[in-house]
Amino acid sequence: MPSQFDPASGTRDFLAAEFERREWAFGAIRSVFQRYGFEPLQTPAFERLDVLLGKYGDEGDKLVFKILRRGEHEASGEADLALRYDMSVPLARVAAAYGSQLTWPYKRYAIGPVWRADRPGRGRFREFVQCDVDTLGSTSPLADAEVLCAHHDAMTEVGIGEFTVALNSRLVLAGLLEAFKISPELGTGVLTSLDKLDKLAPADVIAELAERGLAPERAGELVEVISAPDAADRVRAALKPSETGQAGLDEVDAVLGLVGAQLPAGRVVFTPSLVRGLSYYTGPIWEVRAPGAAGSLGGGGRYDHLIEALGGPDVPAVGSSIGVERILSLLPDAAADGRGRLDVAVTILGGEQAGGELAAQSFALAAAARSAGLRASVYLGASGKIGKQLRWASDQGARWCLIYGAREREAGLVKVRDMVSREEADVPPGEVPDYLARAAARP
Amino acid sequence: MPSQFDPASGTRDFLAAEFERREWAFGAIRSVFQRYGFEPLQTPAFERLDVLLGKYGDEGDKLVFKILRRGEHEASGEADLALRYDMSVPLARVAAAYGSQLTWPYKRYAIGPVWRADRPGRGRFREFVQCDVDTLGSTSPLADAEVLCAHHDAMTEVGIGEFTVALNSRLVLAGLLEAFKISPELGTGVLTSLDKLDKLAPADVIAELAERGLAPERAGELVEVISAPDAADRVRAALKPSETGQAGLDEVDAVLGLVGAQLPAGRVVFTPSLVRGLSYYTGPIWEVRAPGAAGSLGGGGRYDHLIEALGGPDVPAVGSSIGVERILSLLPDAAADGRGRLDVAVTILGGEQAGGELAAQSFALAAAARSAGLRASVYLGASGKIGKQLRWASDQGARWCLIYGAREREAGLVKVRDMVSREEADVPPGEVPDYLARAAARP
Repeated sequence: MPSQFDPASGTRDFLAAEFERREWAFGAIRSVFQRYGFEPLQTPAFERLDVLLGKYGDEGDKLVFKILRRGEHEASGEADLALRYDMSVPLARVAAAYGSQLTWPYKRYAIGPVWRADRPGRGRFREFVQCDVDTLGSTSPLADAEVLCAHHDAMTEVGIGEFTVALNSRLVLAGLLEAFKISPELGTGVLTSLDKLDKLAPADVIAELAERGLAPERAGELVEVISAPDAADRVRAALKPSETGQAGLDEVDAVLGLVGAQLPAGRVVFTPSLVRGLSYYTGPIWEVRAPGAAGSLGGGGRYDHLIEALGGPDVPAVGSSIGVERILSLLPDAAADGRGRLDVAVTILGGEQAGGELAAQSFALAAAARSAGLRASVYLGASGKIGKQLRWASDQGARWCLIYGAREREAGLVKVRDMVSREEADVPPGEVPDYLARAAARP
Repeated sequence: MPSQFDPASGTRDFLAAEFERREWAFGAIRSVFQRYGFEPLQTPAFERLDVLLGKYGDEGDKLVFKILRRGEHEASGEADLALRYDMSVPLARVAAAYGSQLTWPYKRYAIGPVWRADRPGRGRFREFVQCDVDTLGSTSPLADAEVLCAHHDAMTEVGIGEFTVALNSRLVLAGLLEAFKISPELGTGVLTSLDKLDKLAPADVIAELAERGLAPERAGELVEVISAPDAADRVRAALKPSETGQAGLDEVDAVLGLVGAQLPAGRVVFTPSLVRGLSYYTGPIWEVRAPGAAGSLGGGGRYDHLIEALGGPDVPAVGSSIGVERILSLLPDAAADGRGRLDVAVTILGGEQAGGELAAQSFALAAAARSAGLRASVYLGASGKIGKQLRWASDQGARWCLIYGAREREAGLVKVRDMVSREEADVPPGEVPDYLARAAARP
């Protein structure tokens, strides 16, 4: 039951453990992108409406969150701004705006939220993080291979060990249409149907192709060739007569050759049935697949004319998008690092709560622990009872509790309690930071 | 002149250097908050409209960015969602939604963008980062002092060395009104005028107070007492007859006592003229001021009834907001760390660009350098000339350039060029990672 205190439909609040888990994953991915020399880029949450509309097709436009005009214009009911829908349109705008300030080829990554007014559902959100890595301005297969390797390394860096990368080229697909003598008018529809081979049975795809106007025997042959266990070899053979197809195979082989030396054997697999829905790809395409994960964990490819179509300069481009929300859902649960919220919890005894000398000394002890690099806090609750405060220290996951009451003041000592072994040591206040630092350094 | 490629009015694109500078500052502040045991909280960019409206007064409501309803409802011109305006309303909602899942007192920080449809201007943005630290559920002055110290330490952590914290209490101000026999009806207006003492001349403030209906001689006396060089002592004397005022002085002294032992002498100063515009404060209040900075660098205080007023549970609360955009503008320029974009730049020679054996070996060399923990990339441009590629390596700020051409292949060696000393060494390909790791470890 949604309550009035829930976040808006399709959005999420991230409390401490989940927030830390996500930040850790984003940080790990960032570190990989940096190692490859990609630069960060952060654009605003919203763009002018005209920058966004007309870039995602009619269906996409409907999913854009539009922002109402303000002040006297609010009553018009019109929008003039819209929330970021992806990272590509802002990238195109930035490439146009800062062209000469950027180093070209421009290698950038972007990790941040995007917003889509999709129907919310299990694992589908209206606010979710996209994680893109792209190179603008290079036609070299080295750029394709580099982006693919960066995507690959990001996956392993966050701890996804088992996955494969399906690799193909749009030119291989174009060559297949040519070799099977499928007219360009039919072509797009045929590819859309072939794209379903990972979800539908071959017979269903063949039926769909027939409906689109393909001769049933030719449809059967095509599906057979690209989905057979030895599809790679059969497609290579079938493409012999097609120049386009040969160029596509060269692209695939160039990428395979470059990544082969670095990635585990069998990690990247030539997969002629891979289409990747979006029609803007112009060269190599790939998709990351993991056993047990329905759908892909991201993918990418070369899209040499998209940046211009999105309003940017006419530059070649290649990029990959990491399905980071998907990946996060595959990772072990939050708070698995076993670290509590605090290293050092400090009691507040003496009843006066504060202003009193005991409280002031305890407050100073927490500061001293922090100066030793530890996370420390005094007890802020209302209870003056030591038992309750020790429970709090334990709830915080604190490794030590510092106890300073009337008895300790009289002795001129602080009681340092190890919350695991329950051993206690009496330590002069001035020596507490050193004592804790030494204890923290022990394994 | 704004161009069609500029970001929307009042928003900014952050390219690499500025992005890194901001991330560094946010990370430094985060590390301080963590050391104090505050937990992170991240809420969505937008909330349901009813959650936000009516919480910021009429003026505030006008500055809220509202999101148009979608699909068939778009034509209504109505909004149902709105962008986050601050971090307090989401905090109130979260406290209500997850009450028992949170550890109480709930100590949380939030660092993230908020959006306000203010008129953009120099240093004033429509998308800017807020950085809040708050404790809900504690009435203890320890909580006030802790939040203030965390704010203080965050300032020093990012490198702001010279600043003071003006400290007062709303009860001191209430006591002053009482002592000067100013009626409660006049009180709010009087405080609004006194709040201008840091901008206007005393005479102007006195004139304004007189306009509000205060007897001129009483207005003069009041302004004299709270803005004199010895204001602290004179206010203490003036508050003798007021119980409320005494309670306020006790609050101020409790906080001063707790922070005094930890912060540099004179850092926190009892400042009876401090009002802090917002009327929701109920106890101690403070403001961070730096020489040369117009206006405050942030501040906070106790606001015991605000969370309930914002739609949350009725809990006491204290918090501080770090003026992080202001602080960023005071910090030295970006890219001051002297690190380039890459550690290792790798040439692509031989003309074949890729597919060729030289390119494949160079691609593998970059991967090897990354495996040694260095940031490395191959040349992705179109030129086959070594001079142009060395220029690129230098533009990237690379420390080393790896050169692998026909001559190196023949010799079975890689040329490692130190981009600073211009010395070159011939290294077998397999030993390049070790060679670079050793060189990187040298000071």
